[in-house]
Order: sequence, then structure tokens, then C-alpha cells
Amino acid sequence: MRNVYAIGIGITSFTRLEFQLVEIASYPVMFALRDCGLKQVDQLYVANMGGARLNHQTALGSAVVDSCNLLPAGAATIENGPASGAAAIKEGFMAVASGMHDVVVVTGAERMREVNGLEATDFVASLTHPLAEYIYGVTLPSLAAMFTRLYMEKYGVTERHLAMVGVKNQNNALKNEFAHLQQAITLEGILDSEEAFTNNPYVAEPLRFFDCCPVSDGGACVILASEEVAKKTGRPMIRLAGVGQSTDTHAVLARKDPTDLLAVRRAAAQSMEMAGVKPKDVDVAELHDAFTILEIAESEEVGFFKKGEGHLALERGETELGGKIPINVSGGLKGRGHPVGATGVAQAYEMVYQLRGEAGERQVKDAKVGFTCNFGGFGNNVICLTFIRED
Amino acid sequence: MRNVYAIGIGITSFTRLEFQLVEIASYPVMFALRDCGLKQVDQLYVANMGGARLNHQTALGSAVVDSCNLLPAGAATIENGPASGAAAIKEGFMAVASGMHDVVVVTGAERMREVNGLEATDFVASLTHPLAEYIYGVTLPSLAAMFTRLYMEKYGVTERHLAMVGVKNQNNALKNEFAHLQQAITLEGILDSEEAFTNNPYVAEPLRFFDCCPVSDGGACVILASEEVAKKTGRPMIRLAGVGQSTDTHAVLARKDPTDLLAVRRAAAQSMEMAGVKPKDVDVAELHDAFTILEIAESEEVGFFKKGEGHLALERGETELGGKIPINVSGGLKGRGHPVGATGVAQAYEMVYQLRGEAGERQVKDAKVGFTCNFGGFGNNVICLTFIRED
Repeated sequence: MRNVYAIGIGITSFTRLEFQLVEIASYPVMFALRDCGLKQVDQLYVANMGGARLNHQTALGSAVVDSCNLLPAGAATIENGPASGAAAIKEGFMAVASGMHDVVVVTGAERMREVNGLEATDFVASLTHPLAEYIYGVTLPSLAAMFTRLYMEKYGVTERHLAMVGVKNQNNALKNEFAHLQQAITLEGILDSEEAFTNNPYVAEPLRFFDCCPVSDGGACVILASEEVAKKTGRPMIRLAGVGQSTDTHAVLARKDPTDLLAVRRAAAQSMEMAGVKPKDVDVAELHDAFTILEIAESEEVGFFKKGEGHLALERGETELGGKIPINVSGGLKGRGHPVGATGVAQAYEMVYQLRGEAGERQVKDAKVGFTCNFGGFGNNVICLTFIRED
Repeated sequence: MRNVYAIGIGITSFTRLEFQLVEIASYPVMFALRDCGLKQVDQLYVANMGGARLNHQTALGSAVVDSCNLLPAGAATIENGPASGAAAIKEGFMAVASGMHDVVVVTGAERMREVNGLEATDFVASLTHPLAEYIYGVTLPSLAAMFTRLYMEKYGVTERHLAMVGVKNQNNALKNEFAHLQQAITLEGILDSEEAFTNNPYVAEPLRFFDCCPVSDGGACVILASEEVAKKTGRPMIRLAGVGQSTDTHAVLARKDPTDLLAVRRAAAQSMEMAGVKPKDVDVAELHDAFTILEIAESEEVGFFKKGEGHLALERGETELGGKIPINVSGGLKGRGHPVGATGVAQAYEMVYQLRGEAGERQVKDAKVGFTCNFGGFGNNVICLTFIRED
């Protein structure tokens, strides 16, 4: 396989956007092309989950490739639930690694906020098992809540730990101009004060409002290329060195131990093994904190901390900016937002940004190895990426 | 790049199916696994266009990989409008060619007939340009009708030529037990008799009922693998030797000459060049006859006939079973049906079936080189595949 490099990045604000879905997917491509100084590419992937249902837009790849003036490059749309973004990056990786294409654009986009909250929840629940989950009223927040309850019983995680993840990530988002939530929060405000009951109500007990990511519109892009093309850009060489993916049972109830995120563990191990790194080598990570509990659980399964000890590392500040392994310094899904198709690409964007040393206020010092975990379904389809800065 | 072989195939009947979408996507996989004697794979792609809107089912890859007992293989859904099937095969090709995976399942599925005709038409029209086409009432049948009118004026194609394609393909379908339409038709019955006006009314003039493919449910699967794995099956070695893809303007009105199917020409040339063959070397082909005019136009653009002469070759019987270059002996989209996500995979299925020499009544004698054209949008995203039997 040929080496694959991330040579260009672009992103929109994650917020409520009035642009059409095609535009939300296209703008980050224009930024990323300018970032690497290229005007033509061989192939384009759009990661998107909701176009057909939420935006009356299918064949988004065909629309975006023309909108970005990239004809006659090949194009397709990749959908993999909340892991659509990293799934599209995996396709881009293989397209370059195989030698089939030299430059591949991967853009992710979602326009969700035109639907109301309940329809957004129902839409995302369309990834659950139709007979074993959905018809019983299971949604993603309810799955996450049940998972949290088990985690609390088994490992001693408390609502305070969950809130700590939310406070950390939402405050990290203040250092990211493209992040959706630009509001400082404190444990006092969302948990300890009398106002917390109204400020931070339960969404699905024990998960509260500030434990859940917002529903956002947004797009993000990463351009992947061969070594030859990457060298010509004259920019830091950021190699996509590891790609791991694993599936798990579609329905959560089919798992022996629902607190065991087997697909995360496998995908992370594959990705790091391919890249030749260990968890201790990772300098900066973006984990999929659609719900605060997921950051804690994933930080264990990917190997940063022992199982059941993620919340203790959190307490010790190890996952903060400046800590042992800063997690979600971009704000994560919690603070940056979660336009579903864009999320996995935005995670990769952050890694390139960090490894290039361009991240300003939120820069993780001397970051050389970056790691992302894009969590699809409720842990039934997980893709982990490892990026290495080559000097 | 490593060589890639098609080692297993499976298909459902294309018809009205009462199974869930997940099942329609899974059954062909089970057949294809049995066909090649494998029980485990590395990666699975599902080609599907309508799950989110028509079937309340997203993240279909995650559902199907579990349903087929293929955990923990990676999985994702590929959507590329009517070219979703071949787009997924392209992804499978690169996954194996790159060395990332050794065995990749590509299944395509659609469950469309639960919606009424008008909603199906509106759904497919969601691939048109939202501002330049859709809002003016443009649908795929209307685009095809305007294209046909231009083609008639420019090249002398008549309604009789269109009907000849329909008669040929629908009668070919009688030799395919999985084909949707199992009704013999004649030029007399659909064109020349008094009953023709009621039997075969205009859908979008000059296109009549029998010029349009039916709306079908169905699924088809092809398993791709490395040479090493392919050899172990002990079956004929069918190599996916050429993969070509090209895009064209999203909106048809942006093309200098709308009768010029540039993306078809480019994708076909790329695919054949990669495979090292010329149009005259092709023994059997599946072209994307969603409307009868498309078979005529594509037969020219891919290089079988000169531009403007496809209908003359049709008149001479060259595209019939037993002719110089038999086209759509499976029945094509017209006769076999067009469950959107399944179509490109079903075309590849037919090539493997033919090149293995297993096609019985519809076998093209001594077929060694097979070619498919999967036409997305209205010609804005086209993927062509070339298969070669190695002996």
C-alpha cells in the first residue's frame, strides 16, 4: 500500500446554517483546496446521513463535485450513521493507498436543524434495529442513558463525572471559532446550584441536557493524497498512518455485556497497530462524545486508561488541554457540535490542525501523533484513525 | 495494485418483495457466500439510495453485516443515485486492490414499491439539481423524454427503435428467472395495433410505458477478493480488470450538447483502457436502460457503434442474444427491473454469470470479456466496469 497524507483541510462553522446541503458540503472543499493549493482532484466523497430524508437531496457526491468545479472527478456519497465521516476517510485512504487515485477529497456535511428536535431524534433512531429496538421506542439518548446507568453501577461513575466532561469540552469549544456552543459553563451552574434543575434538566435520566451534543448544521473537509503530491505542497507531512474499523451487533441487547464497547477496542487496536503506535504514544485525541459518558468509556476502550478508570483520569485532569492526553480540545461533539456526516471528518480536521501546530489557543504542545474515534450506531460500527506528523 | 476477482454472486427476485430492506440486502449475500464457499469476509458495502426516506433505515451496512453473521467486518453504505451499485463495487475493488482487505462483499438493495408511483418518481428526482431542475418540475422521465426528442431530431431515432429495445430486453427477461417482467411483448402489441394506445400510453412523450423500467424491489451481491483467495475457490477466474468513473454537470442544461453523454464516454474509455481491451473485444454488455433511449445512446458512447448509429445496429439485430454484441441479455433495467441500489451490482452479477458460462438459456457463447455501464443522475455520474475471464 502507498502512504497516504492529509494535505488540506477546511471547515464551516457548526451552527444553524441557512445554506443548502450541497453548499454546506462544498464550502469546506473550497477552503481545503485553497489550503493545499490544488485545483483539481481525482475523486470526491461526501459523508452524509440525512440528505434523502431531511433535505430532499440524494446523489450528493454528483452535486458537490460539480458545485466545487471538480468535474470530471469520480464522486460518491458514504453513509455510515454517525461514523459516516470516518467511513468516507477510510474510502479515501484506500483510493490513494491502492494507487487508483492520487488526490481524493473527503467532505462531510449535514443540515439537520431545519427539522425539530423530535424529528431529528427519530431520524437518528433510524439506525437502530427496526424490530429489536426502534419499535420499542429506543432512541440514541435512551440507549446512551441505559448504558450510563450500567456504567455507573459497575464503575462508580457519577453525574458529576459526566458533567465534568461537558464542562471541559464546552469550555474547550470557546477556543474554537467554528464550534457551535460558545457559552462558558461551570459545575456550579449545571449541577450544584438550585438553578441547575431548570438549566440542566434530565433528557434521559441520568443524562441531562448538558450531557448531550447539540443538533448542528455544518461541514468539514480533508484532502488526502499520495506522498508525491503531499511533498509538493511544502506543508508539514501529516500521514494517515492507521485506519481501523470494527462492527458489533446491530442491537445493543445482543451483546453479552453492553458496557463492553468491543468495536471501539478492536478498531482502535487495528488503527494503532497499523500505524505502529501504542496508546501511550498518542499526543492528542478526538473521541466521539455525542453523550458525555461516551468520552469516558471510549478513553478506556482505546487504551488510554484501564477499563473503569476513565472517570478517575478525568478527575485528575489528564484529559484536559495541558494534561497527559488531551481529549476533544476542539470542543468535541459536545461543544463543536454534531452535524452527523461532518463529525468524523471534523475530527480528522482537528488532528491535521494540531499536528501542523496551527491550533493557536488550543494547541497541544509538540503533538506528533493524533488519534480519532468515530462511533457509529450505538457502538455497532466504529472507525479509528491514527495520524502521524513526519518530520 | 493487486488484481481483484469476482468470486461469488447472489441475487433475489426483482419484483414486489415483502421483506424488510435489511433482508433484501442480506439474502443475496447469503447466496453469494454459499456460491464461493466462504463464511467470513473483511469488509461489506451496501449500495442503497432510498433507505433513509423510503424505509426508515439508515446505517444499512451496520445492519446487514450483523444480519449476515459477518461481524466484526467493516461495513458502510454507498449512495450514488442510480449508480450506487457500481460505486460500491468500485469501493470494493479499491479495498482489495490496495491490500487493505482480502475479501469484500458488495451488496445492493432497494425496497421501493411500498411507495406509490408518484412518490417513487419524486424520490428519484431528489438527485436532480434542486434549483435548476427540480423546482421546475423536472423528473427523470421528463429528462429522458427531452433527451429522446433531441436524439430523434439529430439522429433519426424513431419510436419504433425505442420499442425495439423494449421488446428485445423484456423478452430477454423471460430467460431470467429473477427478472421482474415475465410477460412477452411484441412490436405489434405495444406499437402497431389499435390496442397499443391503451396498452402502451405515453408517460412523457415520446417515451411510452414500455420504454420505462418498472419500479422494483430487489437485491444483488458480488463478492470481490484477492487472487490468492480467488484461486482457492476452484471456480473460473473472473477478474474485475477495469473500473472507470466520470462525472458531468449536475444539471443537464449546463451541457453544451445534452445528447453528448460525456461521462459515459470517459468512464467507458477509462475502464477499457485499464483492462487493456477495446470495444470490439467485448463479448457481452449490460447497459443502463432505465429508459430505452439510454441503451441506444450508451451503446454508441461506450464505443460499440458510431455516434448516431446505435439504432441502426439495433435494427440489424447486432445487440440481440446471438448478435455481434449482445446487450442486456439479462433483461436489463427494462426487463429485470431497477431496484436502484441493486442495479449496478446486478449488472456485475450478470457478467460473472456469463463469463463463468453458467447462464443457460441466455448464455452468450464463449464470452470472455464483459462490460457494464451504470448511469447515475441523468448522466452526471457514470461508472463502467470491465470483467475478463482468465483461463
